Amino acid sequence: MSAPTTSPPSWFTFEIVAEDGRARVGRFHTPHGVLETPVFAPVGTQATVKALTPAQLGDLGVTLVLANTYHLYLRPGADVVAQMGGLHHFMAWPHPILTDSGGFQVFSLAAMRDIDDDGVTFRSHLDGSLHRLTPEKAVHIQEQLGADIIMALDECPPPYDRAYNEEALRRTHLWAERSLKAHTRKDQALFGIVQGGVFPDLREQSARFIASLGFPGHAIGGLSVGETKEEMYAMLDVVTAVLPREKPRYLMGVGTPEDIVEAVRRGVDMFDCVLPTRLARHGAAMLKHGGRLNLRRAEFARDPRPIDEHCTCYTCQNFSRAYLRHLIVAKEMLAATLMSIHNIHVLVDLTRELRQAIREKRLDAWLAQWYARHRATSETNLADR
Amino acid sequence: MSAPTTSPPSWFTFEIVAEDGRARVGRFHTPHGVLETPVFAPVGTQATVKALTPAQLGDLGVTLVLANTYHLYLRPGADVVAQMGGLHHFMAWPHPILTDSGGFQVFSLAAMRDIDDDGVTFRSHLDGSLHRLTPEKAVHIQEQLGADIIMALDECPPPYDRAYNEEALRRTHLWAERSLKAHTRKDQALFGIVQGGVFPDLREQSARFIASLGFPGHAIGGLSVGETKEEMYAMLDVVTAVLPREKPRYLMGVGTPEDIVEAVRRGVDMFDCVLPTRLARHGAAMLKHGGRLNLRRAEFARDPRPIDEHCTCYTCQNFSRAYLRHLIVAKEMLAATLMSIHNIHVLVDLTRELRQAIREKRLDAWLAQWYARHRATSETNLADR
Repeated sequence: MSAPTTSPPSWFTFEIVAEDGRARVGRFHTPHGVLETPVFAPVGTQATVKALTPAQLGDLGVTLVLANTYHLYLRPGADVVAQMGGLHHFMAWPHPILTDSGGFQVFSLAAMRDIDDDGVTFRSHLDGSLHRLTPEKAVHIQEQLGADIIMALDECPPPYDRAYNEEALRRTHLWAERSLKAHTRKDQALFGIVQGGVFPDLREQSARFIASLGFPGHAIGGLSVGETKEEMYAMLDVVTAVLPREKPRYLMGVGTPEDIVEAVRRGVDMFDCVLPTRLARHGAAMLKHGGRLNLRRAEFARDPRPIDEHCTCYTCQNFSRAYLRHLIVAKEMLAATLMSIHNIHVLVDLTRELRQAIREKRLDAWLAQWYARHRATSETNLADR
Repeated sequence: MSAPTTSPPSWFTFEIVAEDGRARVGRFHTPHGVLETPVFAPVGTQATVKALTPAQLGDLGVTLVLANTYHLYLRPGADVVAQMGGLHHFMAWPHPILTDSGGFQVFSLAAMRDIDDDGVTFRSHLDGSLHRLTPEKAVHIQEQLGADIIMALDECPPPYDRAYNEEALRRTHLWAERSLKAHTRKDQALFGIVQGGVFPDLREQSARFIASLGFPGHAIGGLSVGETKEEMYAMLDVVTAVLPREKPRYLMGVGTPEDIVEAVRRGVDMFDCVLPTRLARHGAAMLKHGGRLNLRRAEFARDPRPIDEHCTCYTCQNFSRAYLRHLIVAKEMLAATLMSIHNIHVLVDLTRELRQAIREKRLDAWLAQWYARHRATSETNLADR
């Protein structure tokens, strides 16, 4: 995050400031500041990254936060957020915000859903009330919420069902065009989403079509939803080869260190995931080189060490595994806060290291070192996946 | 909190730096810094002030935190805390800490208790295990925990039962003497506790006896436990008239703005209470001049104002009532954090204002103004008690 210097580029300009192989470091200009990419965005489902204040997120070096349209539409309502001055003001986050289209939650959370080419009808998981989401409605709600980056409504089918993926892809492409037409706010960047399951030809077709529509950025959806890592990386290879170099690429819902590393080396710029905060609430610490520590385990009851002796986060600088385990066992809220601070730091710091390695054109060496430690971590049985 | 200047006074010296009527401003020297009194201590029951990091407490100007011996003895165990370097290191709180004796929780929380002159046998509320607490054991546990200020074991009977209060007072006095004999650590101040229910003669007798034992400070227990405010203030009048001027006076478990104001004007120096953090977790904001706002109420759903437009806390500087209500209704952890920040700020700021008014010898004028606003707050029906 830094202010533009001389003549500021217009909003949503994406400058590529360094490249190393397919990986790149970029600067994405938004109305709420410049995002340095690769960037990891923690998820603030209900307009709050669970258990953390905006001040704590800022201290962590977080620059982008994701909020969920489905949740905010149902509660407190997009009109309430708009009346309160939009999401930035509502949740006191002065930096860039990204909202999803709401589609993913409709498909995964809603009590009932009925999809057709026009849109999707669903029942709220909160009170059973009936709602209708169309591409136009998804854009309108996101315009009310007021994030810097918003998403076209898409359909995310199970990754291995060829027929379903073909049908969903047709709909996703139709909806992408309608979303673009519906979008009116000039201070928001609308991203189109590439789908296609684990099928290289569908992925390539989708990337070509979505890229042809002229979005200011492109998202890759429908990955990390049950396919293997090899399949995910193969799809990234296909898609990043097609998507234009000069626009940011956002891999939705991805957040393990391994997956971020592998996606960045393939030219992906943006990530979001609930993983660091969700694991935190379950007492699991993410480790920088992959793997996890389950701090609920009795072996940590008298362990005076921090989660990671090399970690510079507030949690590792101040608290022992013994204290964190005590908080977890005693069901204290501070456990989620301190574990979230550590886990988000791991991913934010990872993207910082990746940016630096790319800038210095030593990504291969960095990767070799990272994987050496990754293997060592696994072998010493520190990990508890 | 400030470092001693020239020749530092020895630990647990209490300097009275200003007086106005019976009220005073003091500096209580502890191994972890100087406490400026009157001081309010939030409660960190299980070695954490719920929903707040030590950094947030520091930002709030908190200088003293209370932790509960009963809870920490049962979980994680006083030996674990000792092995981890004591409470300050365990919970990463570098400033003064106070522990209670554990008695109050034994009487209020334990599943079974059986009291005799030697001590009390009880069953853990966590797992039903059988434990024995004596004055010597309470001191020993608190020496393991390592707080700066520790408490003699006492018995806190129902306030109106004369016979029970006489019996409990005899035991409390016996235990105060045994606690003093058992205490070995020179870097801890052991306070004796005055009891006596709502009976002026018992309170006077207790204050005289406890004061005669030579404790470095005196606590007033058994108030704010069901008696009326008039009775509480009358007991404070009796007790503060007897307790020596030159030692700090600690009113246990008291934490409404009104009660703090009334106790400070009677010469009380220290307070602790779960009220600000407990109310916060229930969605209630404390107001500076008394009264509360229940932010769960629907009337706040679109209220763009902060809790208190004159409040300088992080919560009021950044968040609307509408946002706080949303967090409360959505059961987000951030609600407890933001509400706790506000409520603790109210009490910490109140003690700061009281210290300033006493220093400037204008406490009467300050009180007149505070009560004028207190009445106005009640009359405008802002309060929701």
